[in-house]
Amino acid sequence: MTQRVLTGITTTGTLHLGNYVGAVRPAIAASREPGAESFFFMADYHALIKCDEPDRIERSRLQIAATWLAAGLDTQRVVFYRQSDVPEIPELTWLLTCVTSKGQMNRAHAYKASVDANVAAGEDPDAGVTMGLYSYPILMAADILMFNAHRVPVGKDQVQHIEMARDVAQRFNHLFGKGQDFFVLPEAQVDAEMELLPGLDGRKMSKSYDNVVPLFEGGAKGLKEAIARIVTDSRLPGEPKEPEGTALVQLFDAFATPEQRAAFRAELRAGLGWGEAKQRLFAQIDAEIGPMRERYEQLMANPERIEQILQEGAAKARAIAAPLLARLREAVGLRRFQPLQASTAPVAKVKSALPVFKQYREADGQFYFKLNAADGQLLLQSQGFAQGKDAGQWVARLKREGAAALAEAPVQRGEVDDALLQEALAALQAADSA
Amino acid sequence: MTQRVLTGITTTGTLHLGNYVGAVRPAIAASREPGAESFFFMADYHALIKCDEPDRIERSRLQIAATWLAAGLDTQRVVFYRQSDVPEIPELTWLLTCVTSKGQMNRAHAYKASVDANVAAGEDPDAGVTMGLYSYPILMAADILMFNAHRVPVGKDQVQHIEMARDVAQRFNHLFGKGQDFFVLPEAQVDAEMELLPGLDGRKMSKSYDNVVPLFEGGAKGLKEAIARIVTDSRLPGEPKEPEGTALVQLFDAFATPEQRAAFRAELRAGLGWGEAKQRLFAQIDAEIGPMRERYEQLMANPERIEQILQEGAAKARAIAAPLLARLREAVGLRRFQPLQASTAPVAKVKSALPVFKQYREADGQFYFKLNAADGQLLLQSQGFAQGKDAGQWVARLKREGAAALAEAPVQRGEVDDALLQEALAALQAADSA
Repeated sequence: MTQRVLTGITTTGTLHLGNYVGAVRPAIAASREPGAESFFFMADYHALIKCDEPDRIERSRLQIAATWLAAGLDTQRVVFYRQSDVPEIPELTWLLTCVTSKGQMNRAHAYKASVDANVAAGEDPDAGVTMGLYSYPILMAADILMFNAHRVPVGKDQVQHIEMARDVAQRFNHLFGKGQDFFVLPEAQVDAEMELLPGLDGRKMSKSYDNVVPLFEGGAKGLKEAIARIVTDSRLPGEPKEPEGTALVQLFDAFATPEQRAAFRAELRAGLGWGEAKQRLFAQIDAEIGPMRERYEQLMANPERIEQILQEGAAKARAIAAPLLARLREAVGLRRFQPLQASTAPVAKVKSALPVFKQYREADGQFYFKLNAADGQLLLQSQGFAQGKDAGQWVARLKREGAAALAEAPVQRGEVDDALLQEALAALQAADSA
Repeated sequence: MTQRVLTGITTTGTLHLGNYVGAVRPAIAASREPGAESFFFMADYHALIKCDEPDRIERSRLQIAATWLAAGLDTQRVVFYRQSDVPEIPELTWLLTCVTSKGQMNRAHAYKASVDANVAAGEDPDAGVTMGLYSYPILMAADILMFNAHRVPVGKDQVQHIEMARDVAQRFNHLFGKGQDFFVLPEAQVDAEMELLPGLDGRKMSKSYDNVVPLFEGGAKGLKEAIARIVTDSRLPGEPKEPEGTALVQLFDAFATPEQRAAFRAELRAGLGWGEAKQRLFAQIDAEIGPMRERYEQLMANPERIEQILQEGAAKARAIAAPLLARLREAVGLRRFQPLQASTAPVAKVKSALPVFKQYREADGQFYFKLNAADGQLLLQSQGFAQGKDAGQWVARLKREGAAALAEAPVQRGEVDDALLQEALAALQAADSA
């Protein structure tokens, strides 16, 4: 069965080589595995919590989108979007807010850590805590549940949030589901051994240690300069060197095959100088990163291309989010007012109020179909088909797959509200599977 | 100056005669006053906080919409919409959530009352408190700020929420406004003497006292039966009766002219029997309510008409909400990625990359101006002016006030994205004030 995997991408700051090796590269590799349907989103609503520097958010969103694309994210295969391009997410956030208990938010680690720090400093426990910081696990639950993700790769510190999303999903299913489940219960996927790259000084690579190797910033020159600053011991060329445990070799390993790793170690033990070793390391990394850097620079020079890619991603995301939200709204009571015969007729008559597909042949000899609402309003109009059975197959597919088939179907929409159309297709689909 | 007045309508339960006299009738009268631009919305996102009975929410929304329409709400004149038809509202809620301090929510009366009750009962302070209950003042702030309402008629218990909306608005303006204010600071309007109708037993009319006179439910018969149950003293017909302070007379007063009030009192003092007095009361109320009840029943028989009215209202509301939200998104950094020449030119060159106003005279002898983007794209084209200085004054004002002057300026927009235009005007304004 296809597993939906959802990855949120923070949009503050830029990425360094450690982020690439530890997060970007494995996530992209996983998205290429068969049986995975991957969602990647730029978490820019989340970015607003921590950052009130709009220009920084804007720049970071652009750089990070360009980085993932340059690193090989296949946007034909995955759904890649900005959270803030999917208005269904904040709406779902409110629906979930109404079924989340406050006690659960009180127990969130991130919030408790702020409270502890305030108390230790003799401050009010909630000093400096915004409602964004406090309630963001609900937004995160909406991110996940909106797409019914099965798996969410996260760090250990985020496992609790996935559990919260499960709880909220369960509660919503229980309150409103009447036996049908709206939400899949997501699982946290904590990779046992997330590859941690050492920084220039051998500690974990991190901006807070000021020891990072940049990914694309500064170009090949920047990469070379950073590598030159890697701390080594003072052995001279010709002296044997112990490769294991050195930052230089660990960085090399992250970009090398087992054979290359063995050969590099052998050379160091045989006395390869650190200066030359650094040149080897640069060549090894740049063989992988160099072509990406070129793509990155091209993308950064054409932000409107990135914009277009993200807009296409948002359209794919919304094609999934909108029908689900329509079902949720229906479930909680946010319904359109229907003509009386449809909403209050006994169950036996409901079928007659369904939208209706009509297939017919025009004077041009071609076959067509259209979809009319129960009140006769035109919802969809097909193109002409040479064969009647082609029209029939599209009708069958639209009934079976509902709105999901809409993007590919050779149809024009009538002058109707999108929500109405989504609702009609969902109703047909429900009737079809009944 | 036009004052925007925003009224939220709860969508749980149905309305009784006391709601009509105390809330519906005065609000509709106020909406007809010159100089008021009134917004009425069905607060159905709020309804989700208290109610997990979807069918009840649905029924209540319909009945309450029909009631306001039947009572004479002029939807040509006012903006009447369902909160849940304006997806800009939950999105704004998130933007405001990020700038609201948690301490402020801790001080909200409704939340504190729940905590006090829990503590008194020996429970966990947050027992049974949902995040919806806790954070709804932020949703309420979004309701108000989305339309930049000047005045919000509320009961005394809601004044604090309006103050919170002011605080959040001020904070947002301060953080992101750069001198221009996005939000009007709303004022609570507490009517000094809200008319309180007595119920059947003389206490305030309230469902919790089970003493209500229905508004439309049960038809004329239901009204008559309720009136028959009004408590009176046991004086017989022919005995003089003291009218002042009786529930019956207070109900009569609410539907009568001063002359009718005086005449009714005189009759009671002259010995009018209570039975007959109740018939007079019924006739008096039904003269006003009867025609409304007919409209109500027609509307309830045609929910799709109400739906259409609300959809038209939502379109009017969104025409105001969407452009404001676009400005807010731009301000916080949720921007579309633009082609480079506009967004990343080095600082020294920024001036030359500003959009440019051009003033000129056409063959028709009139003076014009236009605004071109740095890349030459037409952003704005003015109408013709007889005097060159008029064109010049508009250019100066647009530079000074930016997008705020756009609504009044005698200009047509070029074929450009709204965000681009807003950005251009903001850039000019920033340059002007620098």
